[in-house]
Amino acid sequence: MFKINNNYLKLPGSYLFSTIGKKVAGFKAEHPDKKVISLGIGDVTQPLAPAVISALHKAVDEMGAAETFKGYAPELGYEFLRKAIAENDYKSRGVEIALDEIFVSDGAKSDSGNIGDIFSVDNKIAVCDPVYPVYVDANAMEGRTGIYQKEFEKWSNVIYMPCTAETDFAPELPEEEPDMIYLCFPNNPTGSTVKKAELQKWVDYALKTGAVIIYDAAYEAYISEEDVPHSIYECEGAKGCAIEIRSFSKNAGFTGTRLGFTVIPKELKSGDVSLNSLWARRHGTKFNGAPYIIQRAGEAVYSEEGRKQTKEQVAYYMNNAKIIREELKAAGYTVSGGINAPYIWLKTPDNMTSWEFFDCLLEKANVVGTPGSGFGPSGEGYFRLTAFGTYENTIEAMERIKRI
Amino acid sequence: MFKINNNYLKLPGSYLFSTIGKKVAGFKAEHPDKKVISLGIGDVTQPLAPAVISALHKAVDEMGAAETFKGYAPELGYEFLRKAIAENDYKSRGVEIALDEIFVSDGAKSDSGNIGDIFSVDNKIAVCDPVYPVYVDANAMEGRTGIYQKEFEKWSNVIYMPCTAETDFAPELPEEEPDMIYLCFPNNPTGSTVKKAELQKWVDYALKTGAVIIYDAAYEAYISEEDVPHSIYECEGAKGCAIEIRSFSKNAGFTGTRLGFTVIPKELKSGDVSLNSLWARRHGTKFNGAPYIIQRAGEAVYSEEGRKQTKEQVAYYMNNAKIIREELKAAGYTVSGGINAPYIWLKTPDNMTSWEFFDCLLEKANVVGTPGSGFGPSGEGYFRLTAFGTYENTIEAMERIKRI
Repeated sequence: MFKINNNYLKLPGSYLFSTIGKKVAGFKAEHPDKKVISLGIGDVTQPLAPAVISALHKAVDEMGAAETFKGYAPELGYEFLRKAIAENDYKSRGVEIALDEIFVSDGAKSDSGNIGDIFSVDNKIAVCDPVYPVYVDANAMEGRTGIYQKEFEKWSNVIYMPCTAETDFAPELPEEEPDMIYLCFPNNPTGSTVKKAELQKWVDYALKTGAVIIYDAAYEAYISEEDVPHSIYECEGAKGCAIEIRSFSKNAGFTGTRLGFTVIPKELKSGDVSLNSLWARRHGTKFNGAPYIIQRAGEAVYSEEGRKQTKEQVAYYMNNAKIIREELKAAGYTVSGGINAPYIWLKTPDNMTSWEFFDCLLEKANVVGTPGSGFGPSGEGYFRLTAFGTYENTIEAMERIKRI
Repeated sequence: MFKINNNYLKLPGSYLFSTIGKKVAGFKAEHPDKKVISLGIGDVTQPLAPAVISALHKAVDEMGAAETFKGYAPELGYEFLRKAIAENDYKSRGVEIALDEIFVSDGAKSDSGNIGDIFSVDNKIAVCDPVYPVYVDANAMEGRTGIYQKEFEKWSNVIYMPCTAETDFAPELPEEEPDMIYLCFPNNPTGSTVKKAELQKWVDYALKTGAVIIYDAAYEAYISEEDVPHSIYECEGAKGCAIEIRSFSKNAGFTGTRLGFTVIPKELKSGDVSLNSLWARRHGTKFNGAPYIIQRAGEAVYSEEGRKQTKEQVAYYMNNAKIIREELKAAGYTVSGGINAPYIWLKTPDNMTSWEFFDCLLEKANVVGTPGSGFGPSGEGYFRLTAFGTYENTIEAMERIKRI
């Protein structure tokens, strides 16, 4: 008689964005006349860059001719892509990453969801609170988080590191020692970042305590300020304690195109065992590579044209971010984020809960945002808006919000 | 201090095809003058069908324009694709599968590797022996297989179901009761199949004992004989006990394009809990969909042209299979498979071990095959050749093998 993984039954409700999706679908069904603007889920709206489109067409043609057809990809991903990554994302910042330390994947969500596979269930995780829900949910599925305590909206065996106005939306070193530390900078959802010296403290802490840092840098392309690290490997010693997860979703609009990668330096070890070798084994056993044509698209992001064009996309979204920030501020909201990240984090007015404000915004302004409490208990009373809408929708959404 | 998943350390050697890849690369480096023909890894060689190529180009263009650009896909996959699947793979065979019972993925390898996630570690698995190595390796990573006993080349906590000449390469119902039964028909590596009445026995057995069947039908497009089921749901009651995993890799040459799907009927339950809901949760948390353009490519496989063109590809490979079968038979080899599957399974000559024959074939004929023992202990003394080469290479490989 088969038995299920009971950890799944401990998960509260459904995945945040599914819940929002259902609420919005319900509202639209009831109000087919209303034009709903979504600044909710972190999904991009700008089309793929011309350089990417042209690389895709070329690769598609290759797949249509016997001489250039490609079957299974090399296990770590095509070398042309890993070279472009090593060169542009790391070498250009003074970081040496070997090609076999880069694992090309179908995206950062899969990687952050699956990375727990190579770790013992018997590890205590620490997460920023609030944070991207996948880290905690994936660990919960693996039985690493204890029991969900509904009254606190917390798992019993997770170290939550509050990131609130009081901490300037950055986590503080935890009192209790974690084994695995999830960091995401620029942060989703708060849009906050840490300076290099601050991140160095985390690296030093991990090295001292023997913790591993799982560093999600999916939003690094949005960093506009100096001295904010784009990669954790800019910090000294980070190769000995950190895994870095990257995405093409936000720097190049690949949310529906699916491409990402994870870096695991070979010197990151538990005793004699390198985590790189464990992940290589998982990658080779439970995954079969990103599509060839998508890997070519990823390569094109690093071409001269691709870099220029995707930079323009980022600038487009960051202009939206500026508009949201300034309009909300002018309307009396307390806001942060939006300077090194495409997310604006605002305090809900009138002590509304996050979900109350969600409903209010949906009903009164027909604007969809994301309730802060969906990202963790310290997100209660906050709300996330994204800069990924079109310029026109962003302007209109702000007009509507101001009219509430 | 972080701790790794020690189950990974129990895994013997590396993934079969990685080992072969390294051996072949070594041979090529030593003999740059030799033309090595691979009939080893089950990778296709024919280009994508014109209907698929044209769908890809069209979808790429959509991604390049704001009005038609696609971001995150619906969690289960685009409805256009799930409809085509339900219609063509199931309804056409008298099987009703609801759209929310179909989960579109990046391929059958990911799904067969990840499906274990929703089951307790405390389940005993049964596998055909020999079989596709991913089932056992993925379960080993999850701690479900006990200890690897090198002397037997077996895991201590796995029920092996020998599929040898004595059993006509089909498994017999196991004496010890398993909780999870992996079946793969047409079988990889033996190329054997079971008739519908025989598969019904397995469904009845699973229903009686409360086991779940994980049914890998990646090769169903190669079935040429009547009365061999293309889906396990052709058997009565299968929706109450079976998960079916499908792939576009072999029916449409998507090995490097990456698309597959898994069917979990809602009536498949453990107590009150439907496995469909658990997999939906996993799918939504640790995965973010297959690329839009690839899902459009999948849809095109089901178009009138696409069906015709991919059928021709399958016929092309099956002609190779026939050549391999007949040539090897004429040369005195004992062979099976190759009638409902693109795999030919042969007894190694002169009591050579599978790896001895691998080396012999590589050195004397410069032909790469796959050692049967790599698929399980009962594969020892057998060898797999695939029909996925080009016609010309297949002919040449047979000439060379006959000259040994």
